[in-house]
Amino acid sequence: MATLKVPACVPAPEQDSEQLRKAFSGWGTNEALIIEILAHRNAAQRKLIRESYAAAYGEDLLKDLDNELSSDFQRAVLLWTLDPAERDAHLANEATKRLTSNNLAIMEIACTRSSYDLFKVRQAYHAQYKKSLEEDVAYHTTGDIRKLLVPLVSAFRYEGDEVNMILAKSEAKILHEKICDKAYSDEELIRILTTRSKAQLNATLNHYNDQFGNAINKDLKADLNDEYLTFLRATIKCLTCPEKYYEKTLRLAIKKIGTDEKALTRVVVTQAEVNMQRIKEEYHKRNSVPLENAIAKDTSGDYEKMLIALIGHDDV
Amino acid sequence: MATLKVPACVPAPEQDSEQLRKAFSGWGTNEALIIEILAHRNAAQRKLIRESYAAAYGEDLLKDLDNELSSDFQRAVLLWTLDPAERDAHLANEATKRLTSNNLAIMEIACTRSSYDLFKVRQAYHAQYKKSLEEDVAYHTTGDIRKLLVPLVSAFRYEGDEVNMILAKSEAKILHEKICDKAYSDEELIRILTTRSKAQLNATLNHYNDQFGNAINKDLKADLNDEYLTFLRATIKCLTCPEKYYEKTLRLAIKKIGTDEKALTRVVVTQAEVNMQRIKEEYHKRNSVPLENAIAKDTSGDYEKMLIALIGHDDV
Repeated sequence: MATLKVPACVPAPEQDSEQLRKAFSGWGTNEALIIEILAHRNAAQRKLIRESYAAAYGEDLLKDLDNELSSDFQRAVLLWTLDPAERDAHLANEATKRLTSNNLAIMEIACTRSSYDLFKVRQAYHAQYKKSLEEDVAYHTTGDIRKLLVPLVSAFRYEGDEVNMILAKSEAKILHEKICDKAYSDEELIRILTTRSKAQLNATLNHYNDQFGNAINKDLKADLNDEYLTFLRATIKCLTCPEKYYEKTLRLAIKKIGTDEKALTRVVVTQAEVNMQRIKEEYHKRNSVPLENAIAKDTSGDYEKMLIALIGHDDV
Repeated sequence: MATLKVPACVPAPEQDSEQLRKAFSGWGTNEALIIEILAHRNAAQRKLIRESYAAAYGEDLLKDLDNELSSDFQRAVLLWTLDPAERDAHLANEATKRLTSNNLAIMEIACTRSSYDLFKVRQAYHAQYKKSLEEDVAYHTTGDIRKLLVPLVSAFRYEGDEVNMILAKSEAKILHEKICDKAYSDEELIRILTTRSKAQLNATLNHYNDQFGNAINKDLKADLNDEYLTFLRATIKCLTCPEKYYEKTLRLAIKKIGTDEKALTRVVVTQAEVNMQRIKEEYHKRNSVPLENAIAKDTSGDYEKMLIALIGHDDV
């Protein structure tokens, strides 16, 4: 469930564009007005605002936002305003760069979006970067992480609920054997994780747990400092319980000395319109403090206001 | 260029359906009428005929064709009548089965269709088989062939003409090094072949030829009996000169003792509406005999008539 709150009566895109133009004009910028409008419009509405803004003023709203705003607030507003597929393409591209390299951000996109949404990201990637997503991911990674990440971003998983229990049993056994042999990047293990539908994978991992006594991620904790193993566990968590994966990502981002604003922004802007309500519940349960309080404590100013506007206040 | 010939004035789909229904009725089947209609309608027109047939008679045209026809003729008509994406999904699925295993048929689909058409095949595969294409391909293959084939079917290559010459040079060098080391299934070699755009790949392979004195496929002829090497050469040919790849496939199918009807049908039905004119030219050039003569010599009856209707007679 989304946390995005859209007013019952949404102004016409032309009106929103006019208000945004006003927020940019004169001395200083009216950040509160920008948040009031953009943080309370859904993707389709934001798209119409961008179109009407371009039609009315001959300028790209994103460029004007880029000029008017700065730092973490700027990044949050820009990413939020983008179309979801464009945003994911942008995040993935950024994550393939040497200095910002972040394979988790790419894995997140590959594992939590629907199959068709992931395909739309790949289309947006072509349009924006004149290259394919998998091409950049494969070029910028190596070794075991590449072996796992490239098929993840290239997948078009079946999304039906059908489950083959015989297959679940046989593939649980394969996974267990490979893990016992410490063959964590074995091609059969990677094949199962990167090609099976999420429903099938769930059945396989449930059977794994029943049959072998441990959740697979527990058996994968052999070496907590191994980068690939950490990545593998995160991938499995992302595929099977995205809310828990995102809860942990937020927890680590907030707990970090200095706060990891990049990760915080990424999770909030990509999930506010999708699954943030469930992530907030997980966060509260795990940390005994509501996510909005934790964010308010760790951030400030317009950036804080933007994030809180997106994740909403839980009515007490 | 296609060889499919559609009459200047095409009857309404209802009329075609009625004629087809007549062709099935009474004692015996009017095969000539079936060819006259179906072999001269494009994909969009065939789709309308199927829809109007289902609406008028409450039956699936494909099922009726299946009941009325037999053997190679039946297979050619059924495959031809299918929507191209459904047809490719069917051919790929058939090729993953143990008894008919044919990795070349899958590779052909992955390497010669446009990126978006390959995606449509993956969508059709979900709809028809309740699984993903890559899932079945990965499950039914092993070793080096799997390492190459799975990323090929999962690719969504960029299709622009932009070429990065610096990259072409550096990747030609990588390919040459790997081939010198006989590391034919090295992950860098596979990465380059499975992720780069066809334009980029062409530039890389041209540079390879210029710089190292041989076309890459010549350097890959180290072991003519190695299944993987043969597959790798076919893949490169398919990506860079599909007409030549198809010419060779037809040549081998026709030359084979007993003729390989499966391959012959596959190439004709999948290419008649796409690139068959160029393939015919290649065939004539390479074999000194027009393709239609070679096919007429090797096939007979309605099957022959269907194939010849699809590839057309070259007007002398």
